Amino acid sequence: MAEREPVRRPGGRSARVRAAVHQAVTELIGERGYGEFTVGDVAARAGVADTSVYRRWGTLEALLTDVALTRLKAQSPMPDTGTLAGDLHTYAAQVAREIAGPDGLAVLRLVVALSNRGERGLQARDDFLAERARLIQGMLDRAGDRGEHPPDALGVLDHIMAPMYIRVLFGAGPLTPDYIAGLVDRLLARP
Amino acid sequence: MAEREPVRRPGGRSARVRAAVHQAVTELIGERGYGEFTVGDVAARAGVADTSVYRRWGTLEALLTDVALTRLKAQSPMPDTGTLAGDLHTYAAQVAREIAGPDGLAVLRLVVALSNRGERGLQARDDFLAERARLIQGMLDRAGDRGEHPPDALGVLDHIMAPMYIRVLFGAGPLTPDYIAGLVDRLLARP
Repeated sequence: MAEREPVRRPGGRSARVRAAVHQAVTELIGERGYGEFTVGDVAARAGVADTSVYRRWGTLEALLTDVALTRLKAQSPMPDTGTLAGDLHTYAAQVAREIAGPDGLAVLRLVVALSNRGERGLQARDDFLAERARLIQGMLDRAGDRGEHPPDALGVLDHIMAPMYIRVLFGAGPLTPDYIAGLVDRLLARP
Repeated sequence: MAEREPVRRPGGRSARVRAAVHQAVTELIGERGYGEFTVGDVAARAGVADTSVYRRWGTLEALLTDVALTRLKAQSPMPDTGTLAGDLHTYAAQVAREIAGPDGLAVLRLVVALSNRGERGLQARDDFLAERARLIQGMLDRAGDRGEHPPDALGVLDHIMAPMYIRVLFGAGPLTPDYIAGLVDRLLARP
């Protein structure tokens, strides 16, 4: 079918295939969970040939990571409120909303699952985390430029993200607004 | 074969089967990772019938949880140093040693994977976490009995375990002795 597409419309069919494949992955994650479907399942659901998926993404891991990164970027524009405290409070609440839903939990599980799938999985995981770290670092750098004294990105991971991630991954306690705000206040009290 | 065993030796063959099956699970986790083998694989490796595994454990999830709990109990006698600070520093270093190795990472991944396997998986995960919470609570209660002011068990999870777990699960930074001690000092400074 691809041969019939006009050469001068880059992105037309390509964008439709990408959207259909992403939608198929999201549905399959919701219905079956990570690790419970193949490239063939995705292609069938999206109504495209297996070869179209392999040609564009190469591996299932690469496809899953592309979906996860796309969702991450769509859901998390980094806040820019003018103060470090404002940014961190807004960001923490945003992350909590994301991971409290089934999609967010799926992304977390993907990151954990990727690290168990050989070199390509590790690379996909590291690309994913590097992207998130880059976004956080940008927010912290803006605070530094304003003369504030931001913690480092690993501090944000350790004391804001990690407790929320583990509570969600382990089902170990609710992410209430007070709890989330407390994590940020605690980090800011000891930068 | 079971029919030939003398009735009056409870635990003899039973204990050997359990040890062989546990050993097979540990080997398969190391070689393939969680979710990459079946009860049939375990039974073949252990040299027992599939039915022996199903009869004793019921499901693969229940077997994996039994292995994880057994390893957890074997590796983590809770410290009892006489002070809260001593106990937490010892415990944090102990957990770091456990999860930094491939076996410990496997246990963490099991906990995450279990929550994606329906009601039975969730039950197994919750049993596992309840056991760990019970051990931590006992340590904190001893501190309270001595007149110290321990944090609650969720605080230990949030600010000592979670950062270490996430660093290991995400491959996001080393667990140095200074880092681990810093987590404990931070928690004790704001109980």
